[in-house]
Amino acid sequence: MDTTIKQSLKEIVGAENFTDSLIDLIAYSKDASEHRHRPDAAVWPVNTGQVSAIMKLASREKLPIVPRGAGTSLAGLAVPEQGGIILDLGRMDKIIDINIEDRLAVVQPGVVYADLDRALSPHGFFFPPDPASGSVCTLGGNVATNAGGIKGAKYGTTKDYVLALEVVLPDGRILHTGSKCMKSVSGYDLTRLFVGSEGTLGVVTEITFKINPKPPLVSTSMANFETLEDAGRAVSEIMYSGIIPSALEVIDQQTLIAINQNTDLNLPEVEALLVAETDGYTREETEFQMAKIVSIFKKNNATTTRQADSKEEAEALWTARKSAYGVLARINNNLIVEDLAVPMSKVPDMLRAISELSKKHNLRIPTVGHAGDGNLHPVICFDGTNADEVKRVEEASAELFEKVIELGGTLTGEHGIGLAKVPFMGLEHDEISMDIMRSIKRLFDPNNILNPRKMGLEE
Amino acid sequence: MDTTIKQSLKEIVGAENFTDSLIDLIAYSKDASEHRHRPDAAVWPVNTGQVSAIMKLASREKLPIVPRGAGTSLAGLAVPEQGGIILDLGRMDKIIDINIEDRLAVVQPGVVYADLDRALSPHGFFFPPDPASGSVCTLGGNVATNAGGIKGAKYGTTKDYVLALEVVLPDGRILHTGSKCMKSVSGYDLTRLFVGSEGTLGVVTEITFKINPKPPLVSTSMANFETLEDAGRAVSEIMYSGIIPSALEVIDQQTLIAINQNTDLNLPEVEALLVAETDGYTREETEFQMAKIVSIFKKNNATTTRQADSKEEAEALWTARKSAYGVLARINNNLIVEDLAVPMSKVPDMLRAISELSKKHNLRIPTVGHAGDGNLHPVICFDGTNADEVKRVEEASAELFEKVIELGGTLTGEHGIGLAKVPFMGLEHDEISMDIMRSIKRLFDPNNILNPRKMGLEE
Repeated sequence: MDTTIKQSLKEIVGAENFTDSLIDLIAYSKDASEHRHRPDAAVWPVNTGQVSAIMKLASREKLPIVPRGAGTSLAGLAVPEQGGIILDLGRMDKIIDINIEDRLAVVQPGVVYADLDRALSPHGFFFPPDPASGSVCTLGGNVATNAGGIKGAKYGTTKDYVLALEVVLPDGRILHTGSKCMKSVSGYDLTRLFVGSEGTLGVVTEITFKINPKPPLVSTSMANFETLEDAGRAVSEIMYSGIIPSALEVIDQQTLIAINQNTDLNLPEVEALLVAETDGYTREETEFQMAKIVSIFKKNNATTTRQADSKEEAEALWTARKSAYGVLARINNNLIVEDLAVPMSKVPDMLRAISELSKKHNLRIPTVGHAGDGNLHPVICFDGTNADEVKRVEEASAELFEKVIELGGTLTGEHGIGLAKVPFMGLEHDEISMDIMRSIKRLFDPNNILNPRKMGLEE
Repeated sequence: MDTTIKQSLKEIVGAENFTDSLIDLIAYSKDASEHRHRPDAAVWPVNTGQVSAIMKLASREKLPIVPRGAGTSLAGLAVPEQGGIILDLGRMDKIIDINIEDRLAVVQPGVVYADLDRALSPHGFFFPPDPASGSVCTLGGNVATNAGGIKGAKYGTTKDYVLALEVVLPDGRILHTGSKCMKSVSGYDLTRLFVGSEGTLGVVTEITFKINPKPPLVSTSMANFETLEDAGRAVSEIMYSGIIPSALEVIDQQTLIAINQNTDLNLPEVEALLVAETDGYTREETEFQMAKIVSIFKKNNATTTRQADSKEEAEALWTARKSAYGVLARINNNLIVEDLAVPMSKVPDMLRAISELSKKHNLRIPTVGHAGDGNLHPVICFDGTNADEVKRVEEASAELFEKVIELGGTLTGEHGIGLAKVPFMGLEHDEISMDIMRSIKRLFDPNNILNPRKMGLEE
């Protein structure tokens, strides 16, 4: 990168908010995925005006700009595949307003999810979509990926809570979308176009979220199933029983084995373990719903069911689910946390297919997921220095997503397309759909400077 | 309109699905708003292929196409301001699939809201956004306007339930958006771009909705307030008390007077009456929430509160709210049912401003609304043959929307921009926002054939 460009960047953000040191650029060459590419420089803008000035410079000089939050993407969204400038929004981290009366939180994009949650908690409110990376991920990234989490079936995902955005467009103009009112149908829904657009259309510099009062009580239970089919039937029956659990998580046998080998949790190594949670304002309400769930568990041959009698016991039940990633990350050289969704009734078929792919390609693919909305995370474990294994991973991934589409599923429930799913976009979207998406990209970003190569939008 | 074009239309849909008879065209010159303009012809396509053929013809011949459902728009969305062809989707009225297991309903656009509700009811499920016109309006129209209803504060609006769409584009291509999975972040959210786009970007020919289990129990109560301010404070306190009522409706004094003069309901003619509903799976849950609401009513000087002890009594409480439109329509020559939303804390200010405008312009403007999400409907009553009164209506409307924007509100919470709000678009949206919306319109509809003149998108 030209030194005059670096000089211009320093003038915009100040020398203290610019870096091109090798150590920083190496750190910025990755996110939580397996993708790697080094940027030429990184900046930490501290206000919208600076972001606008950077975008004008990048447009003029045709420089790739990759917006970045905490870099927790599992799909390569934050990796600068074409080099260029990392726009780290981590120093725009102010909670601008919490307005309980109007049910709003206004934040800058660099605010960490957990910090907003902590700020809302004393008011009895919460921001429901809680990704697994909630303790570190930033809300700008949540908006860019339309992040989900374990409460999706009952509370939806990030898109259901974004009311208004301030967005800097690639040409530097500052766009305001949406309304701070609970309801607005004034003009096209530009807000939703930016939510989940993976930083390819504009840079979000301010977000207004709708927030929810948090039901104070929960009930939690866990059940073991000898077969995936029994667990799958239980999930289906719960979802059409008339209630919506606030969480309904599935853990498969390979994950249970890995957890047992690396913890003292001593879980039964059955084909599937389900963890369910219900919430409400009264104990009767959470228990009424949980009684329904437990009876469905039993009807579908759950070998054991345990219901938590205390907050501590509930935490213990969740430990199994929550320990999965940590255990898998610790015992494997490399892992790809996959993300897919299928119609809920297809969850057992999908789990069975994953298990078969695992055998066929001689790979460990433990799987956890949000069964209540059909969103599964097969975790492909491998050794990146073993060329043969890497090849098998690629083959298994391709077959995995063919199966997902065959079952009426989608390539990604909550992680996004990024770089990881680019090869598969054509499986899910036909040429007309791809053409419209590409037209929208060109409309907003005619020079293709914003997060280029992501989402499979290049022709 | 050229007879060869009429002949081509007849060949596409069949003579039985075409009309240019004067009586039909007069009927199609209006919707539920005060706007009028006669089309040149109307067609009732019966499948997507026919819609595609009509769009190709219209694109070639540069003919305006106005998609229409039940014509219940209160903002002129279905009025063919530029003449052309009415595309009545009322004969595409099949419920294609109800899949409780996967939480889906797939419908054609001409299905009436209440018919879907009736089909879901035996399964214990419902489609929450229930517009006041639910017994007649069609779901294609609900999608086109992003329709709301009284359950918005708790259950959101139509956009929160649309998972996937089949859309015929102006050039005749058939686009499939979204996914039938509960969660998907695969590509741009094209679905949401069409929801609320008022038939200006494409013609929706199939809709996949997410559906919800219906909590079986409700509690209902009503309270009278001598002042708007007391009622407003009660609304605010309820909304930050930690619960979300399934409905929280407000009726103002002018509406109460009109209802009393025309029914035997004998309501107290206070400044504001509130009706609240809570729902849940257990009686404890609905009552717990309602007890909170009633105590907030009392704390804020409610002169009387009544809680329904039976389903019949609950119905009686709702009668007051539900009778408002019928009464107002019966006793006035003309009325404009306005639609606006403000942040919830601004509801009393807005009601006070409406009351002052009413006095200033010597007009009756009774107001009802969904207080729980700040969405108000001032009903401007007038005599359309009285030129002076019509002028005062126009002045009052302009001042009304200036006030709405001053309070941080939005031009429309659930009726849309249509023709009615075109003059006010610039109040809410700056030039950058308008420019982006116009670019999107041009991208999808370069010949401006789809519902032209709506939404203020013409330069």
